[in-house]
Amino acid sequence: MLPGPTNVPERVMRAMMTHIINHRSDDFVELYTEVIEKTQQVFQTQNDIVAFSSSGTGAVEASVINLIKKGDKVIIPVNGEFSSRLSQMLEWQGANVIKLETPPGQNATFDQISEAFDNNKDLKAFYVVHNETSTGTMVNYLDKISDLTSRNNAYYVVDSVSLLGGAELPVDKWNIDVCIAAGQKALAAPPGISPISISPRAKKYMIENPPPTMYFNLARQFKYYEESKHTPFTPALPLLYAYREALRMILEEGLEARFKRHKACSDALYSGLSSIGLTPFAKEEDRSITIIALNYLEGLEDKTFRNTLAQKFRVLVAGGFGNLKGKVFRVGCMGEVNRYHVMRTISAISSTLAMMGYKTNAQEGLKIAEEKLKAL
Amino acid sequence: MLPGPTNVPERVMRAMMTHIINHRSDDFVELYTEVIEKTQQVFQTQNDIVAFSSSGTGAVEASVINLIKKGDKVIIPVNGEFSSRLSQMLEWQGANVIKLETPPGQNATFDQISEAFDNNKDLKAFYVVHNETSTGTMVNYLDKISDLTSRNNAYYVVDSVSLLGGAELPVDKWNIDVCIAAGQKALAAPPGISPISISPRAKKYMIENPPPTMYFNLARQFKYYEESKHTPFTPALPLLYAYREALRMILEEGLEARFKRHKACSDALYSGLSSIGLTPFAKEEDRSITIIALNYLEGLEDKTFRNTLAQKFRVLVAGGFGNLKGKVFRVGCMGEVNRYHVMRTISAISSTLAMMGYKTNAQEGLKIAEEKLKAL
Repeated sequence: MLPGPTNVPERVMRAMMTHIINHRSDDFVELYTEVIEKTQQVFQTQNDIVAFSSSGTGAVEASVINLIKKGDKVIIPVNGEFSSRLSQMLEWQGANVIKLETPPGQNATFDQISEAFDNNKDLKAFYVVHNETSTGTMVNYLDKISDLTSRNNAYYVVDSVSLLGGAELPVDKWNIDVCIAAGQKALAAPPGISPISISPRAKKYMIENPPPTMYFNLARQFKYYEESKHTPFTPALPLLYAYREALRMILEEGLEARFKRHKACSDALYSGLSSIGLTPFAKEEDRSITIIALNYLEGLEDKTFRNTLAQKFRVLVAGGFGNLKGKVFRVGCMGEVNRYHVMRTISAISSTLAMMGYKTNAQEGLKIAEEKLKAL
Repeated sequence: MLPGPTNVPERVMRAMMTHIINHRSDDFVELYTEVIEKTQQVFQTQNDIVAFSSSGTGAVEASVINLIKKGDKVIIPVNGEFSSRLSQMLEWQGANVIKLETPPGQNATFDQISEAFDNNKDLKAFYVVHNETSTGTMVNYLDKISDLTSRNNAYYVVDSVSLLGGAELPVDKWNIDVCIAAGQKALAAPPGISPISISPRAKKYMIENPPPTMYFNLARQFKYYEESKHTPFTPALPLLYAYREALRMILEEGLEARFKRHKACSDALYSGLSSIGLTPFAKEEDRSITIIALNYLEGLEDKTFRNTLAQKFRVLVAGGFGNLKGKVFRVGCMGEVNRYHVMRTISAISSTLAMMGYKTNAQEGLKIAEEKLKAL
């Protein structure tokens, strides 16, 4: 139940055993074109796709170094580790970064975003972290942002590393220029492959203004793909096989069913865990579907709690990140997550709390969770 | 018989099936510290090691962006695709790059290098591609370079992506400040993990002058490793498991035995293939142990030759790179390579040539190869 890397279905793991091939062969072209086409379907886009052999952060960095130049004005909401990190990358790139800061666990409102657009007509881009892994918040108005970016003629960039595949994110419908995901989160692949989509106008800009870098250079990726359907550098082949298999499973399940399953499990976890006495860290209307951050009860020690949960019940959850270390723990609700994961997790957390001397009401929590799981 | 990605032993492939763990857990610390310690043994160094989740090019780029600043003077021998690419990265970084250019297939002599050091006392670093994958050349005087770099007080950087693990490269003995390898070459792991070693003085410089980048930032890697033996970003876990298993196999075999095996197979391939009528592309004294580049015979068509070899005999070799496309083909001699790979390859190439109407003498080639394989 980690907030990534997540459990990987056996079928996806086994795909890694496919024999190593020449990445300059027809066999590779078959593999990579299927990866690209199926990623387009999952992103709900016709845009170009590049699958980087890197973590999500690598692909997010690619979105910065290929699109932003010194002096470019960029707006970004900041309220956690990953939005801070992205903001830092924008500053390193020399951007004039307008940070819309809100307390962790709480998102900027759409009106605040809209006002920032009004005050910055000369905007180059709007960057946003869709789902803040460190605090368990999720932005709910991404469908409305392109009204603002089109008004200001700005690029629209979404870091959906820890959400895409687990909730609605139709890239073309919402006019997102650059969108980033990562295999090891809601896509249920092993870590190491991170896809990024690039709209025609962003692509044109990147080709005309390539950055002076090699590995994350998107213009180079476009060139190789157009010439031969190859990648510029040796890709992490076993992970590409696994990622392809994960995409196949997503499309077999169907996006709508997958999003519904994530939502039902998430609702069940929030309700169930709340009813055994835990409180979610994030503000109610900003709560993430895939990452449930919970405040520790008074006196509850992070390491002891998580170790007991892991050793007695084989349920893994993550601690807090940065400033929130020891203050919250985080439960992933992504990828393979299903009915029995939810029930087992609520039960194990409740039992662990009881073993540590806290009064909880497991029956009540499980009953409410089951109610929510009826949506499945 | 590709010049990478190379065959991966079954035992290494199977290691990828190990279950996905939290990269912020004690289990990960156990995995990663073993990876670091065993990499040190293979690099023959006490220096810090970072294992990037990227291709070799990514780790090579890290060696540039962490060490080189605008205006730094750098010497680099250039005679093929990978040395050109490295030189390009140095220029992008703003370095004053002194290229020692020689024709492809031929290395600069040690005297030419020495002269360049004499003429550039204010040198920041010497970069060299140990083994040029595109042309099958290998530099044979790396043991003597630190006499020059210590005289000029310059950093010594070796890109040994396609050789390390297949031939002698004692990083500490040869005083190499930064050394880069890649899993999918002579280390016989799947592609996607690329280790880099950094000497104490290079590390000090990098920590005091961190580059404004995220994914390949070495100072950030040092910080995470020192604080918790973690990596800053989610690593490609299945590939780390495989890479660890590959390191274990290398150390079980022993470095000396491994280098001897590579050398004997390489000698056998050069002698055997020469005697069936093919000529190596590289100058004799500069020939690589791990990559054997051969000139195509008059009228021999690249695609037909390689397709026949692949379809009739299941022997995969690579075509030429860049300007050498259609002019040479390349046989990898690395990783798992052993007696029967050599014999089968010579036999299959000879038969393919015969099927395409060329006169070859397979018996003679195989006899000479067997002679050379007696060294095993």
